[in-house]
Amino acid sequence: MQRHFHEELSALKQTLLAMGGLVEDQIRRVMRALIERDDAQARDVIDRDQQVNAYENEIDEKCVELLALHQPAAGDLRFITTAMKIVTDLERIGDQAVNIAQRALELNQEPQLKPYIDLPRMASSAQAMVKESLDAFVARDTALARRVRSQDGDVDDLNNQIFRELLTFTMSDPTTIPRAIRLILSARCLERVADHATNIAEMVIYLVEGKMVRHTLA
Amino acid sequence: MQRHFHEELSALKQTLLAMGGLVEDQIRRVMRALIERDDAQARDVIDRDQQVNAYENEIDEKCVELLALHQPAAGDLRFITTAMKIVTDLERIGDQAVNIAQRALELNQEPQLKPYIDLPRMASSAQAMVKESLDAFVARDTALARRVRSQDGDVDDLNNQIFRELLTFTMSDPTTIPRAIRLILSARCLERVADHATNIAEMVIYLVEGKMVRHTLA
Repeated sequence: MQRHFHEELSALKQTLLAMGGLVEDQIRRVMRALIERDDAQARDVIDRDQQVNAYENEIDEKCVELLALHQPAAGDLRFITTAMKIVTDLERIGDQAVNIAQRALELNQEPQLKPYIDLPRMASSAQAMVKESLDAFVARDTALARRVRSQDGDVDDLNNQIFRELLTFTMSDPTTIPRAIRLILSARCLERVADHATNIAEMVIYLVEGKMVRHTLA
Repeated sequence: MQRHFHEELSALKQTLLAMGGLVEDQIRRVMRALIERDDAQARDVIDRDQQVNAYENEIDEKCVELLALHQPAAGDLRFITTAMKIVTDLERIGDQAVNIAQRALELNQEPQLKPYIDLPRMASSAQAMVKESLDAFVARDTALARRVRSQDGDVDDLNNQIFRELLTFTMSDPTTIPRAIRLILSARCLERVADHATNIAEMVIYLVEGKMVRHTLA
Protein backbone atom coordinates (compact mmCIF):
# COMPACT_ATOMS: atom_id res chain seq x y z
CA MET A 1 0.00 0.00 0.00
CA GLN A 2 2.71 2.45 1.01
CA ARG A 3 4.74 1.73 -2.08
CA HIS A 4 1.65 2.09 -4.22
CA PHE A 5 0.97 5.48 -2.62
CA HIS A 6 4.47 6.72 -3.38
CA GLU A 7 4.12 5.63 -6.97
CA GLU A 8 0.91 7.61 -7.14
CA LEU A 9 2.61 10.64 -5.63
CA SER A 10 5.39 10.44 -8.16
CA ALA A 11 2.84 10.16 -11.00
CA LEU A 12 1.16 13.27 -9.59
CA LYS A 13 4.47 15.15 -9.76
CA GLN A 14 4.92 14.08 -13.37
CA THR A 15 1.44 15.30 -14.30
CA LEU A 16 2.11 18.62 -12.59
CA LEU A 17 5.36 19.01 -14.51
CA ALA A 18 3.58 18.14 -17.76
CA MET A 19 0.97 20.81 -17.04
CA GLY A 20 3.77 23.25 -16.24
CA GLY A 21 5.48 22.40 -19.53
CA LEU A 22 2.22 23.07 -21.36
CA VAL A 23 1.64 26.51 -19.82
CA GLU A 24 5.28 27.47 -20.43
CA ASP A 25 4.78 26.46 -24.03
CA GLN A 26 1.60 28.56 -24.17
CA ILE A 27 3.60 31.63 -23.14
CA ARG A 28 6.30 30.84 -25.70
CA ARG A 29 3.72 30.41 -28.46
CA VAL A 30 1.72 33.50 -27.62
CA MET A 31 4.83 35.65 -27.66
CA ARG A 32 5.70 34.25 -31.06
CA ALA A 33 2.14 35.00 -32.21
CA LEU A 34 2.55 38.56 -30.95
CA ILE A 35 5.98 39.17 -32.43
CA GLU A 36 5.35 37.42 -35.76
CA ARG A 37 1.85 38.99 -35.92
CA ASP A 38 0.43 35.54 -36.59
CA ASP A 39 -3.35 35.21 -36.05
CA ALA A 40 -3.33 31.44 -36.53
CA GLN A 41 -0.79 30.93 -33.74
CA ALA A 42 -2.76 33.25 -31.44
CA ARG A 43 -5.96 31.26 -32.08
CA ASP A 44 -4.05 28.06 -31.49
CA VAL A 45 -3.05 29.29 -28.02
CA ILE A 46 -6.70 30.08 -27.25
CA ASP A 47 -7.78 26.59 -28.38
CA ARG A 48 -5.08 24.82 -26.41
CA ASP A 49 -6.29 26.40 -23.17
CA GLN A 50 -8.78 23.51 -22.97
CA GLN A 51 -5.86 21.17 -22.43
CA VAL A 52 -4.62 23.36 -19.56
CA ASN A 53 -8.07 23.24 -17.99
CA ALA A 54 -8.30 19.48 -18.42
CA TYR A 55 -5.01 19.11 -16.55
CA GLU A 56 -6.35 21.23 -13.69
CA ASN A 57 -9.41 19.01 -13.31
CA GLU A 58 -7.36 15.84 -13.57
CA ILE A 59 -4.86 16.92 -10.91
CA ASP A 60 -7.55 18.17 -8.54
CA GLU A 61 -9.35 14.85 -8.81
CA LYS A 62 -6.18 12.88 -8.29
CA CYS A 63 -5.32 14.89 -5.16
CA VAL A 64 -8.74 14.41 -3.57
CA GLU A 65 -8.55 10.71 -4.40
CA LEU A 66 -5.11 10.40 -2.79
CA LEU A 67 -6.34 12.18 0.33
CA ALA A 68 -9.47 10.02 0.52
CA LEU A 69 -7.85 6.64 -0.11
CA HIS A 70 -4.53 7.01 1.67
CA GLN A 71 -5.17 9.56 4.40
CA PRO A 72 -1.52 10.60 4.20
CA ALA A 73 0.35 11.93 7.21
CA ALA A 74 1.81 15.39 7.75
CA GLY A 75 4.51 15.71 5.05
CA ASP A 76 2.64 14.02 2.20
CA LEU A 77 -0.60 15.69 3.21
CA ARG A 78 0.96 19.12 2.88
CA PHE A 79 2.56 18.14 -0.42
CA ILE A 80 -0.84 17.20 -1.85
CA THR A 81 -2.69 20.27 -0.56
CA THR A 82 0.13 22.42 -1.96
CA ALA A 83 -0.19 20.67 -5.32
CA MET A 84 -3.89 21.58 -5.36
CA LYS A 85 -3.01 25.23 -4.84
CA ILE A 86 -0.25 25.16 -7.42
CA VAL A 87 -2.52 23.87 -10.21
CA THR A 88 -4.74 26.90 -9.68
CA ASP A 89 -1.74 29.15 -10.29
CA LEU A 90 -0.77 27.14 -13.38
CA GLU A 91 -4.28 27.34 -14.76
CA ARG A 92 -4.30 31.12 -14.31
CA ILE A 93 -0.93 31.40 -16.02
CA GLY A 94 -2.65 29.64 -18.92
CA ASP A 95 -5.42 32.26 -18.75
CA GLN A 96 -2.83 35.02 -19.06
CA ALA A 97 -1.52 33.43 -22.26
CA VAL A 98 -5.08 33.44 -23.64
CA ASN A 99 -5.44 37.06 -22.60
CA ILE A 100 -2.28 38.03 -24.50
CA ALA A 101 -3.49 36.01 -27.50
CA GLN A 102 -6.66 38.11 -27.59
CA ARG A 103 -4.62 41.33 -27.47
CA ALA A 104 -2.39 39.95 -30.25
CA LEU A 105 -5.43 39.37 -32.48
CA GLU A 106 -6.53 42.97 -31.89
CA LEU A 107 -3.02 44.34 -32.43
CA ASN A 108 -2.71 42.48 -35.74
CA GLN A 109 -5.53 44.57 -37.17
CA GLU A 110 -3.29 47.65 -37.16
CA PRO A 111 0.32 48.23 -38.25
CA GLN A 112 2.95 47.34 -35.67
CA LEU A 113 3.57 50.21 -33.26
CA LYS A 114 7.25 49.54 -32.62
CA PRO A 115 9.74 46.67 -32.55
CA TYR A 116 9.25 44.66 -29.38
CA ILE A 117 12.39 44.40 -27.26
CA ASP A 118 11.47 44.50 -23.58
CA LEU A 119 8.27 42.48 -23.95
CA PRO A 120 10.06 39.30 -25.16
CA ARG A 121 12.66 39.77 -22.41
CA MET A 122 9.88 40.03 -19.87
CA ALA A 123 8.24 36.91 -21.31
CA SER A 124 11.35 34.78 -21.15
CA SER A 125 12.02 35.85 -17.55
CA ALA A 126 8.45 35.03 -16.54
CA GLN A 127 8.58 31.72 -18.38
CA ALA A 128 11.85 30.73 -16.66
CA MET A 129 10.31 31.61 -13.30
CA VAL A 130 7.38 29.26 -13.99
CA LYS A 131 9.71 26.40 -14.90
CA GLU A 132 12.01 26.94 -11.93
CA SER A 133 9.18 27.29 -9.42
CA LEU A 134 7.82 23.89 -10.46
CA ASP A 135 11.27 22.31 -10.45
CA ALA A 136 11.68 23.70 -6.94
CA PHE A 137 8.36 22.13 -5.95
CA VAL A 138 9.06 18.60 -7.13
CA ALA A 139 12.65 18.66 -5.83
CA ARG A 140 11.67 20.51 -2.60
CA ASP A 141 14.51 22.89 -3.45
CA THR A 142 14.10 26.03 -1.36
CA ALA A 143 17.29 27.65 -2.68
CA LEU A 144 15.80 27.53 -6.18
CA ALA A 145 12.46 28.76 -4.84
CA ARG A 146 14.19 31.75 -3.24
CA ARG A 147 15.94 32.50 -6.54
CA VAL A 148 12.58 32.57 -8.32
CA ARG A 149 11.24 34.90 -5.71
CA SER A 150 14.14 37.30 -6.08
CA GLN A 151 13.51 37.60 -9.84
CA ASP A 152 10.02 38.99 -9.45
CA GLY A 153 11.31 42.52 -8.94
CA ASP A 154 13.13 42.49 -12.30
CA VAL A 155 9.92 41.59 -14.10
CA ASP A 156 8.08 44.37 -12.27
CA ASP A 157 10.80 46.82 -13.31
CA LEU A 158 10.48 45.78 -16.96
CA ASN A 159 6.74 46.20 -16.71
CA ASN A 160 7.09 49.76 -15.39
CA GLN A 161 9.65 50.57 -18.06
CA ILE A 162 7.32 49.32 -20.82
CA PHE A 163 4.47 51.34 -19.32
CA ARG A 164 6.48 54.57 -19.29
CA GLU A 165 7.89 54.03 -22.77
CA LEU A 166 4.50 53.38 -24.32
CA LEU A 167 3.02 56.36 -22.52
CA THR A 168 5.67 58.58 -24.13
CA PHE A 169 4.70 57.15 -27.51
CA THR A 170 1.05 58.03 -27.08
CA MET A 171 1.87 61.54 -25.95
CA SER A 172 3.62 62.38 -29.19
CA ASP A 173 1.10 60.55 -31.39
CA PRO A 174 -2.42 59.96 -30.04
CA THR A 175 -3.31 57.58 -32.88
CA THR A 176 -1.05 55.04 -31.17
CA ILE A 177 -3.22 54.97 -28.03
CA PRO A 178 -5.27 51.80 -28.67
CA ARG A 179 -2.18 49.82 -29.64
CA ALA A 180 -0.16 51.18 -26.71
CA ILE A 181 -2.90 50.22 -24.25
CA ARG A 182 -3.06 46.69 -25.66
CA LEU A 183 0.69 46.34 -25.27
CA ILE A 184 0.53 47.72 -21.72
CA LEU A 185 -2.16 45.14 -20.93
CA SER A 186 -0.02 42.37 -22.44
CA ALA A 187 2.91 43.41 -20.26
CA ARG A 188 0.62 43.31 -17.22
CA CYS A 189 -0.32 39.74 -18.13
CA LEU A 190 3.34 38.75 -18.11
CA GLU A 191 3.79 40.51 -14.79
CA ARG A 192 0.96 38.33 -13.45
CA VAL A 193 2.61 35.20 -14.80
CA ALA A 194 5.69 36.13 -12.75
CA ASP A 195 3.46 36.77 -9.72
CA HIS A 196 1.94 33.30 -10.03
CA ALA A 197 5.43 31.75 -10.25
CA THR A 198 6.37 33.72 -7.14
CA ASN A 199 3.28 32.37 -5.36
CA ILE A 200 4.35 28.85 -6.25
CA ALA A 201 7.90 29.50 -5.02
CA GLU A 202 6.59 30.84 -1.71
CA MET A 203 4.40 27.79 -1.25
CA VAL A 204 7.45 25.58 -1.81
CA ILE A 205 9.39 27.41 0.90
CA TYR A 206 6.47 26.98 3.25
CA LEU A 207 6.04 23.33 2.35
CA VAL A 208 9.67 22.52 3.08
CA GLU A 209 10.58 24.88 5.90
CA GLY A 210 7.18 25.49 7.42
CA LYS A 211 8.09 29.16 7.19
CA MET A 212 5.49 31.51 5.80
CA VAL A 213 7.25 33.86 3.40
CA ARG A 214 4.11 34.78 1.51
CA HIS A 215 3.28 38.38 2.22
CA THR A 216 6.59 39.09 3.92
CA LEU A 217 9.84 40.60 2.75
CA ALA A 218 11.86 37.69 4.20
CA MET B 1 -14.89 13.35 18.21
CA GLN B 2 -17.41 13.63 15.35
CA ARG B 3 -19.23 16.43 17.08
CA HIS B 4 -15.98 18.19 17.77
CA PHE B 5 -15.07 17.91 14.08
CA HIS B 6 -18.35 19.46 12.99
CA GLU B 7 -17.87 22.32 15.38
CA GLU B 8 -14.46 22.88 13.85
CA LEU B 9 -15.93 22.80 10.36
CA SER B 10 -18.53 25.36 11.31
CA ALA B 11 -15.83 27.58 12.84
CA LEU B 12 -13.95 27.27 9.55
CA LYS B 13 -17.01 28.49 7.65
CA GLN B 14 -17.32 31.46 10.00
CA THR B 15 -13.67 32.40 9.48
CA LEU B 16 -14.11 32.14 5.70
CA LEU B 17 -17.16 34.41 5.86
CA ALA B 18 -15.24 36.87 8.03
CA MET B 19 -12.42 36.94 5.48
CA GLY B 20 -15.00 37.42 2.74
CA GLY B 21 -16.55 40.32 4.67
CA LEU B 22 -13.11 41.90 4.98
CA VAL B 23 -12.29 41.72 1.26
CA GLU B 24 -15.75 43.03 0.36
CA ASP B 25 -15.10 45.91 2.71
CA GLN B 26 -11.72 46.48 1.05
CA ILE B 27 -13.47 46.90 -2.32
CA ARG B 28 -16.04 49.25 -0.79
CA ARG B 29 -13.31 51.35 0.85
CA VAL B 30 -11.07 51.53 -2.19
CA MET B 31 -13.94 52.70 -4.37
CA ARG B 32 -14.69 55.40 -1.81
CA ALA B 33 -11.00 56.36 -1.83
CA LEU B 34 -11.12 56.59 -5.63
CA ILE B 35 -14.37 58.55 -5.84
CA GLU B 36 -13.67 60.89 -2.92
CA ARG B 37 -10.03 61.24 -4.06
CA ASP B 38 -8.92 60.41 -0.54
CA ASP B 39 -5.26 59.40 -0.18
CA ALA B 40 -5.63 58.42 3.48
CA GLN B 41 -8.40 55.93 2.71
CA ALA B 42 -6.38 54.47 -0.18
CA ARG B 43 -3.38 53.97 2.11
CA ASP B 44 -5.64 52.44 4.71
CA VAL B 45 -6.75 49.81 2.17
CA ILE B 46 -3.11 49.00 1.40
CA ASP B 47 -2.32 48.62 5.13
CA ARG B 48 -5.34 46.43 5.82
CA ASP B 49 -4.20 43.92 3.20
CA GLN B 50 -2.05 42.38 5.96
CA GLN B 51 -5.24 41.31 7.70
CA VAL B 52 -6.44 39.63 4.50
CA ASN B 53 -3.14 37.75 4.23
CA ALA B 54 -3.28 36.73 7.88
CA TYR B 55 -6.72 35.21 7.27
CA GLU B 56 -5.38 33.23 4.32
CA ASN B 57 -2.60 31.73 6.43
CA GLU B 58 -4.95 31.01 9.31
CA ILE B 59 -7.51 29.22 7.12
CA ASP B 60 -4.87 27.22 5.24
CA GLU B 61 -3.41 26.03 8.54
CA LYS B 62 -6.81 25.16 9.92
CA CYS B 63 -7.66 23.12 6.82
CA VAL B 64 -4.44 21.09 6.89
CA GLU B 65 -4.97 20.52 10.62
CA LEU B 66 -8.53 19.27 10.04
CA LEU B 67 -7.34 16.92 7.30
CA ALA B 68 -4.49 15.60 9.43
CA LEU B 69 -6.39 15.11 12.67
CA HIS B 70 -9.78 13.95 11.44
CA GLN B 71 -9.06 12.32 8.07
CA PRO B 72 -12.55 13.29 6.93
CA ALA B 73 -14.51 11.21 4.41
CA ALA B 74 -15.62 12.18 0.91
CA GLY B 75 -18.06 15.08 1.45
CA ASP B 76 -16.18 16.85 4.24
CA LEU B 77 -12.87 16.20 2.54
CA ARG B 78 -14.04 17.97 -0.60
CA PHE B 79 -15.48 20.81 1.46
CA ILE B 80 -12.11 21.40 3.11
CA THR B 81 -10.04 21.17 -0.08
CA THR B 82 -12.51 23.56 -1.72
CA ALA B 83 -12.13 25.96 1.21
CA MET B 84 -8.35 25.94 0.65
CA LYS B 85 -8.88 26.95 -2.98
CA ILE B 86 -11.45 29.58 -2.13
CA VAL B 87 -9.14 31.42 0.30
CA THR B 88 -6.67 31.85 -2.54
CA ASP B 89 -9.34 33.58 -4.59
CA LEU B 90 -10.31 35.76 -1.64
CA GLU B 91 -6.71 36.75 -1.04
CA ARG B 92 -6.32 37.73 -4.70
CA ILE B 93 -9.50 39.78 -4.53
CA GLY B 94 -7.78 41.59 -1.68
CA ASP B 95 -4.77 42.13 -3.95
CA GLN B 96 -7.02 43.73 -6.56
CA ALA B 97 -8.26 46.22 -3.97
CA VAL B 98 -4.63 47.11 -3.19
CA ASN B 99 -3.96 47.48 -6.90
CA ILE B 100 -6.86 49.93 -7.28
CA ALA B 101 -5.66 51.80 -4.18
CA GLN B 102 -2.28 52.32 -5.87
CA ARG B 103 -3.99 53.64 -9.02
CA ALA B 104 -6.13 55.93 -6.83
CA LEU B 105 -3.02 57.44 -5.22
CA GLU B 106 -1.60 58.13 -8.69
CA LEU B 107 -4.89 59.52 -9.98
CA ASN B 108 -5.15 61.90 -7.04
CA GLN B 109 -2.04 63.70 -8.20
CA GLU B 110 -3.93 65.08 -11.19
CA PRO B 111 -7.38 66.70 -11.57
CA GLN B 112 -10.28 64.28 -11.92
CA LEU B 113 -10.76 63.19 -15.53
CA LYS B 114 -14.53 62.74 -15.40
CA PRO B 115 -17.30 61.87 -12.96
CA TYR B 116 -17.25 58.14 -12.28
CA ILE B 117 -20.53 56.42 -13.10
CA ASP B 118 -19.88 52.98 -14.53
CA LEU B 119 -16.90 52.22 -12.31
CA PRO B 120 -18.92 52.34 -9.04
CA ARG B 121 -21.64 50.23 -10.72
CA MET B 122 -19.05 47.71 -11.73
CA ALA B 123 -17.62 47.69 -8.21
CA SER B 124 -20.97 47.07 -6.53
CA SER B 125 -21.77 44.22 -8.93
CA ALA B 126 -18.39 42.61 -8.33
CA GLN B 127 -18.74 43.07 -4.57
CA ALA B 128 -22.20 41.47 -4.55
CA MET B 129 -20.83 38.55 -6.54
CA VAL B 130 -18.12 37.97 -3.92
CA LYS B 131 -20.66 37.98 -1.10
CA GLU B 132 -23.10 35.70 -2.89
CA SER B 133 -20.44 33.23 -3.99
CA LEU B 134 -19.37 32.75 -0.37
CA ASP B 135 -22.96 32.52 0.85
CA ALA B 136 -23.47 29.86 -1.81
CA PHE B 137 -20.42 28.00 -0.51
CA VAL B 138 -21.38 27.84 3.13
CA ALA B 139 -25.04 27.04 2.33
CA ARG B 140 -24.11 24.66 -0.52
CA ASP B 141 -26.60 26.64 -2.59
CA THR B 142 -26.03 25.86 -6.27
CA ALA B 143 -28.93 28.01 -7.48
CA LEU B 144 -27.21 31.03 -5.92
CA ALA B 145 -23.86 29.90 -7.33
CA ARG B 146 -25.39 29.76 -10.82
CA ARG B 147 -26.81 33.26 -10.35
CA VAL B 148 -23.33 34.57 -9.49
CA ARG B 149 -21.94 32.87 -12.56
CA SER B 150 -24.54 34.45 -14.83
CA GLN B 151 -23.61 37.95 -13.62
CA ASP B 152 -20.03 37.74 -14.80
CA GLY B 153 -20.98 38.75 -18.34
CA ASP B 154 -22.55 42.02 -17.14
CA VAL B 155 -19.33 43.00 -15.38
CA ASP B 156 -17.35 42.15 -18.53
CA ASP B 157 -19.72 44.33 -20.57
CA LEU B 158 -19.25 47.25 -18.19
CA ASN B 159 -15.50 46.79 -18.42
CA ASN B 160 -15.57 46.95 -22.22
CA GLN B 161 -17.84 49.97 -22.12
CA ILE B 162 -15.47 51.80 -19.75
CA PHE B 163 -12.53 50.88 -21.98
CA ARG B 164 -14.19 52.29 -25.11
CA GLU B 165 -15.39 55.43 -23.37
CA LEU B 166 -11.98 56.25 -21.93
CA LEU B 167 -10.34 55.55 -25.27
CA THR B 168 -12.61 58.15 -26.88
CA PHE B 169 -11.57 60.63 -24.20
CA THR B 170 -7.88 60.16 -24.91
CA MET B 171 -8.39 60.53 -28.65
CA SER B 172 -9.81 64.00 -28.30
CA ASP B 173 -7.34 65.08 -25.60
CA PRO B 174 -4.02 63.22 -25.32
CA THR B 175 -3.18 64.86 -21.97
CA THR B 176 -5.82 62.58 -20.47
CA ILE B 177 -3.91 59.41 -21.44
CA PRO B 178 -2.15 58.60 -18.15
CA ARG B 179 -5.35 59.10 -16.16
CA ALA B 180 -7.42 57.12 -18.67
CA ILE B 181 -5.00 54.19 -18.55
CA ARG B 182 -5.11 54.15 -14.75
CA LEU B 183 -8.88 54.07 -14.83
CA ILE B 184 -8.83 51.31 -17.45
CA LEU B 185 -6.50 49.32 -15.19
CA SER B 186 -8.80 49.90 -12.21
CA ALA B 187 -11.76 48.60 -14.22
CA ARG B 188 -9.71 45.52 -15.13
CA CYS B 189 -9.08 44.91 -11.43
CA LEU B 190 -12.83 44.92 -10.79
CA GLU B 191 -13.33 42.56 -13.70
CA ARG B 192 -10.85 40.22 -12.02
CA VAL B 193 -12.71 40.44 -8.74
CA ALA B 194 -15.81 39.24 -10.59
CA ASP B 195 -13.75 36.46 -12.19
CA HIS B 196 -12.59 35.27 -8.77
CA ALA B 197 -16.19 35.27 -7.51
CA THR B 198 -17.15 33.24 -10.59
CA ASN B 199 -14.35 30.77 -9.82
CA ILE B 200 -15.71 30.38 -6.30
CA ALA B 201 -19.26 29.87 -7.62
CA GLU B 202 -18.06 27.17 -10.02
CA MET B 203 -16.22 25.38 -7.24
CA VAL B 204 -19.44 25.39 -5.21
CA ILE B 205 -21.38 23.77 -8.06
CA TYR B 206 -18.68 21.15 -8.36
CA LEU B 207 -18.57 20.57 -4.62
CA VAL B 208 -22.32 19.98 -4.40
CA GLU B 209 -23.16 18.37 -7.72
CA GLY B 210 -19.84 16.83 -8.62
CA LYS B 211 -20.33 18.52 -11.98
CA MET B 212 -17.39 20.40 -13.43
CA VAL B 213 -18.72 23.68 -14.81
CA ARG B 214 -15.37 25.42 -14.71
CA HIS B 215 -14.20 26.03 -18.21
CA THR B 216 -17.52 25.08 -19.78
CA LEU B 217 -20.50 27.08 -20.95
CA ALA B 218 -22.92 24.87 -18.98
